[in-house]
Amino acid sequence: MSKFKQCLSCAIAPFVLFGLLGTATQAVASDERLYGRFTADNELYTPRDYREWVFVGATVTPNDMNDGAAAFPEFHYVYMDPGSFASWKKTGEFRSGTVIVKELVSIGSKEAVSGNGYFPGSYNGIAAMVKDAKRYPDRPGNWAYFGFDGESRHGAIQEDSACSACHQASAEQDQVFTQYYPVLPAAKP
Amino acid sequence: MSKFKQCLSCAIAPFVLFGLLGTATQAVASDERLYGRFTADNELYTPRDYREWVFVGATVTPNDMNDGAAAFPEFHYVYMDPGSFASWKKTGEFRSGTVIVKELVSIGSKEAVSGNGYFPGSYNGIAAMVKDAKRYPDRPGNWAYFGFDGESRHGAIQEDSACSACHQASAEQDQVFTQYYPVLPAAKP
Repeated sequence: MSKFKQCLSCAIAPFVLFGLLGTATQAVASDERLYGRFTADNELYTPRDYREWVFVGATVTPNDMNDGAAAFPEFHYVYMDPGSFASWKKTGEFRSGTVIVKELVSIGSKEAVSGNGYFPGSYNGIAAMVKDAKRYPDRPGNWAYFGFDGESRHGAIQEDSACSACHQASAEQDQVFTQYYPVLPAAKP
Repeated sequence: MSKFKQCLSCAIAPFVLFGLLGTATQAVASDERLYGRFTADNELYTPRDYREWVFVGATVTPNDMNDGAAAFPEFHYVYMDPGSFASWKKTGEFRSGTVIVKELVSIGSKEAVSGNGYFPGSYNGIAAMVKDAKRYPDRPGNWAYFGFDGESRHGAIQEDSACSACHQASAEQDQVFTQYYPVLPAAKP
């Protein structure tokens, strides 16, 4: 009986501990709402509030390191809509409805009190990719790629050759460069 | 009367347009909950879910650019708790209760299909700063700085000389390096 009691406390202890840890910080609200909004032609309305979506990673490919002519001479700050991130945490896959926004941020400074490096400057615009089986049944992986000119209220779908081909060839999972977005593998189930 | 009608439509039109734009993407939930949780000694419990907080900026200070001995030879991905970000959007100030987490991310790759650059690798840990007038009345600006060793369930308060001195000397606003976190000035009222 005493042995049973001992075993019971061993079995319960981890749950008590887990319960305590659970109070350390309030959980972020997590639901699977859809965030993309589309025109009648299935073009993505310019996302709003994406800087409050889930940040998945930042990379930088400066001119300095590309003979003065980088294809993308700036930081990329990449965000995923929170509803699809909630789904990702359960499935480890990009659901139909996923919206990923890449914000282009110029290199502002290369020197700071923390050392030499690259520090973000001003915003240069965004690009986005949307996976949607119903809207884009004929596009590879059901992903459509959008450019935004800052004038229109919605993005313009880009030819597959412009973005999709490279994403298909080199991105680790389902046309997304998960190899450079450490939040995603870390949140996989 | 006809003139009045005309004026009325002019006056109403912007609101109709605003209403339409407002539907483009669902707003991210925004309230001013407190996210920090503290021990009896006012040390910060290790934040959870901070990767779903509001990302404010990323910088990188690689060894390559610092004679092989950078003080911080990695990416810094910096997050702010959503409750304090909601407050920031209204006031442009860091409220008492603000928690800012800096996640250290190693440089994984320096070459990718997008060009040469710096690409994140693995996570190396976090540091945090908390502003709280009641908990830290005697610390400069009411900010306490925390290191996390990965073993303890909470952070350890750092001496002012370790972090605060440099933040006080060089950070643009209230010990926060807002000059490198473009999300913050962009969201100011």
